Formats: sequence, C-alpha cells, structure tokens
Amino acid sequence: MPPHLLASSTLPDAVRRFCTDIIHATHESAIAYKINFAFFEALGREGHAVMENVLAAMPSDVLTIADAKRGDIGNSAGFYARSAFETLDFDSITVSPYMGRDSVDPFLAYEGTCAFMLVRTSNPGSNDFQQLQVDGKPLYHRVAQKVSIWGKQSPGEAGFVVGATDARDLEALRATFPDTPFLIPGVGAQGGSASDVMAAAGSGPVLINSSRGVIYASGGEDFAAAAAAAAERTRQALDV
Amino acid sequence: MPPHLLASSTLPDAVRRFCTDIIHATHESAIAYKINFAFFEALGREGHAVMENVLAAMPSDVLTIADAKRGDIGNSAGFYARSAFETLDFDSITVSPYMGRDSVDPFLAYEGTCAFMLVRTSNPGSNDFQQLQVDGKPLYHRVAQKVSIWGKQSPGEAGFVVGATDARDLEALRATFPDTPFLIPGVGAQGGSASDVMAAAGSGPVLINSSRGVIYASGGEDFAAAAAAAAERTRQALDV
Repeated sequence: MPPHLLASSTLPDAVRRFCTDIIHATHESAIAYKINFAFFEALGREGHAVMENVLAAMPSDVLTIADAKRGDIGNSAGFYARSAFETLDFDSITVSPYMGRDSVDPFLAYEGTCAFMLVRTSNPGSNDFQQLQVDGKPLYHRVAQKVSIWGKQSPGEAGFVVGATDARDLEALRATFPDTPFLIPGVGAQGGSASDVMAAAGSGPVLINSSRGVIYASGGEDFAAAAAAAAERTRQALDV
Repeated sequence: MPPHLLASSTLPDAVRRFCTDIIHATHESAIAYKINFAFFEALGREGHAVMENVLAAMPSDVLTIADAKRGDIGNSAGFYARSAFETLDFDSITVSPYMGRDSVDPFLAYEGTCAFMLVRTSNPGSNDFQQLQVDGKPLYHRVAQKVSIWGKQSPGEAGFVVGATDARDLEALRATFPDTPFLIPGVGAQGGSASDVMAAAGSGPVLINSSRGVIYASGGEDFAAAAAAAAERTRQALDV
C-alpha cells in the first residue's frame, strides 16, 4: 500500500482509494477485475463496505470475478452463492470443488454467471493433491471432467482455474475441454510468460489474470499510473 | 427464522437475536459453537457486524469455530487466517486443503489455535472426489496423512473434519490418527446416531456438532428453549 495513502486516511479508506484509482487507471487495458476476498475480509466489518464501493467503481463493460474460493455443503454453498451473485452482484466466482457436486451446484444455478472451479492451480503446494494419480491420470483431470459435466447440466457456466506455470498441463486441458472458460492466474508475479500462456490456452475462452504485477507496479504516489502502464504492457504481451 | 423475530426487526437484527438467545440458552450443554460464515456473508455488510456481536455473546469458557472452509494460495490464505484469528479472534477454523501445503500453513501458524481440514465430509457429494482411489486408498486418507504431518511441524494444531455418516471411515481414521482432534458434523439433521459416532470416534479428542438439530428445534416463540432441550438431549445421547 503506498505510504501517502495510509498517511492521510484509515486503512479501509486507503484500500478503497487504492483499488478505485487502479480500476479507473487500468480500464482501457482490462476486460475483467478479480477481487480477492481475503484482503477485504481481513479489514473486518469495514471490508465488506469497501468491497461494495470497489464494485460500484467498476466500469459497466467489464466482468467481475469474486475470488472467494468458496466450497461447502449444499445448504451453505447456496448462501455463499447468494452472497456473491445477489448481495454483491458479481458476474463470476472461484469455487473449491473438493466437497463434490452438492457443494458446486448452488453456484451453477445462476444463469448468466460463471463459477470457476479450482482445477489446476499454480501455487507451490498445488502438486500435493492435484497431481495424485487416479486411474493413471492426475486428480485434477478427474475434477475437470466432473465439473465440466455438472456445468453442462446447469443454468450457469462452469469454468476452470488453471495456473499459468505449467504450459503443458494447460495445453492438455485445453485439448480435452476446447470450449470451457479458463481463468488463468499466474502471469506476472506468479511466473508464466504471456506468450507461452496464450499459445497453450489455444482458441478457447480465456481470462488471463495479472494481480501483483499490476497493483504493485509502484508503491509510490504514481501507483495508479504505474499500474496502468503494467496493465497495458501485459495486454500488449498477450496480443489481445 | 422464527416469524416473531422477523416481524419486529430487520433481518440482521433478527439473526443477531436468534443466535445470541440460542447461545445463552444452550450454554450448559455446549462446549463449543460453530459459526457458519455463509449465513452471515449473505447478509452483506451488516453480516460481519452481526458475527462480531454473536462472538461477543459467547461465554468465555467455550471454544469458537469459524466454519469458513477457506483455502487459497499462501499469500491470500494468510489474510484469511488473520481475519479469523486476529480480526475476529476465533479459536479454530475449518480449512479446505485441496490447494496444498502453502494454502494450509498460514492457518497453522497461530499457536493455541486449531485448523480443522476437510478430510472426509458427510454431504451427498463427498464421494465424488474424496473416495477416489490413490495408491489403493481413498484420497481422503492421503489428505489426512499430509495435513497431519504439516500440523506436527507447525505452532498451530491440525484437526480433521470427519463426517458422522460413515462410522467405519471414522473408525479407520481414528485408528490411524489416535491423537488428532476430529470435528464431527452430521449428528442430527445430517444423520448419524450419537452412540455410533461416539463409539467410532474412540478415545481421541472430538468435537461433535449438531447444528440444524439444535437451532431449528422450533420455529416458534419457544425457539431458544427448544434449542436448549435439543442440545441437552444431544449431550445426554453422547454421554459426555
């Protein structure tokens, strides 16, 4: 967080200003904005209000992604889905599918939305479980197969979160799921070059995400301009 | 929600009253209270304040469980952990381990707390992934093994969420992990008899949870007294 924002206001106000300034500055280069719930929740009761303000600052022509990674039994999942799609009016959400179909279905019940399921993430621990062999294939393949089927049977759309760090995994998933929307984090701070990712993602629908590479482009008074430049460089590297 | 509560106040106020009255009424029978975040988040910005009020109403001698099922890459997981253990001061939290070690470690960094990992849940979809065979054993065994090791290497404690619906699975997990704290939902509304669960849980540490069986014991003006009676019946059935 740039010190000059913190010097003149409370932390929630500084976060509000930081986010809305970056949104306004990067709008020309961005098709979607992903809101990481963890950072807002850590602000306590004011965090939710800040998130509402940030959502209200979104241009009308962008997609919004609730990066909440929710997953619970059906009854509870329904309330999480309501929170993201009704209370907060997001276009899409990230979902953890480990608890199975009834934990996923409530997110797929909303027509015109997309639930991006954690399939193959790019973090250091992603191999602990996602790469375990099930019938000769990695577990994440099975997860992808299942959630793809569930998505086809639902009003809402099922997408995959697929990390950018392993281009071969991405390529293999795209070959099997040519029409599935992929949300691809990991361009920028988490590694993964833009051209490799674009080549591996093929011609199917993709949202490619750079978070830290954009929002932490500068920690100074020029943070918004630096974010705009970083976002535009990323867009150009992706050649979109 | 009892209609008389809704008739005289806003929904957040009704939830606040509902929860605090039930906590006060059931205190003699309960050793812990599990707060399901989904229901509070669906209330929007007021939900967090209601949760703070409900936490403030807790007797000082009970354990509090943040039933949030969080799980994200390390950086974000750290903020979720801060939210539960610092901003809100819970004693424990439920965590989804599917993203691997770096998504789990931040929750285990707090001494004197316990992170209950989703290992073997009791919902209808739990077999979709948790029962997949990995090296001849169900996936949830592998998850249990890993998170048990991570817990031993951390300041905080790692527990398991283990559903009450399959007593044999519970028994097998207890045989392998005699000292691990088990959080066992599914007594009451989700099925699973109290005596079966107690027998299967063996002599290791357990928290046995009844949610809907207690809080929905009556939808009338007697909701708190009915909840108290249901909680006491459950305690007696568990013979603790």
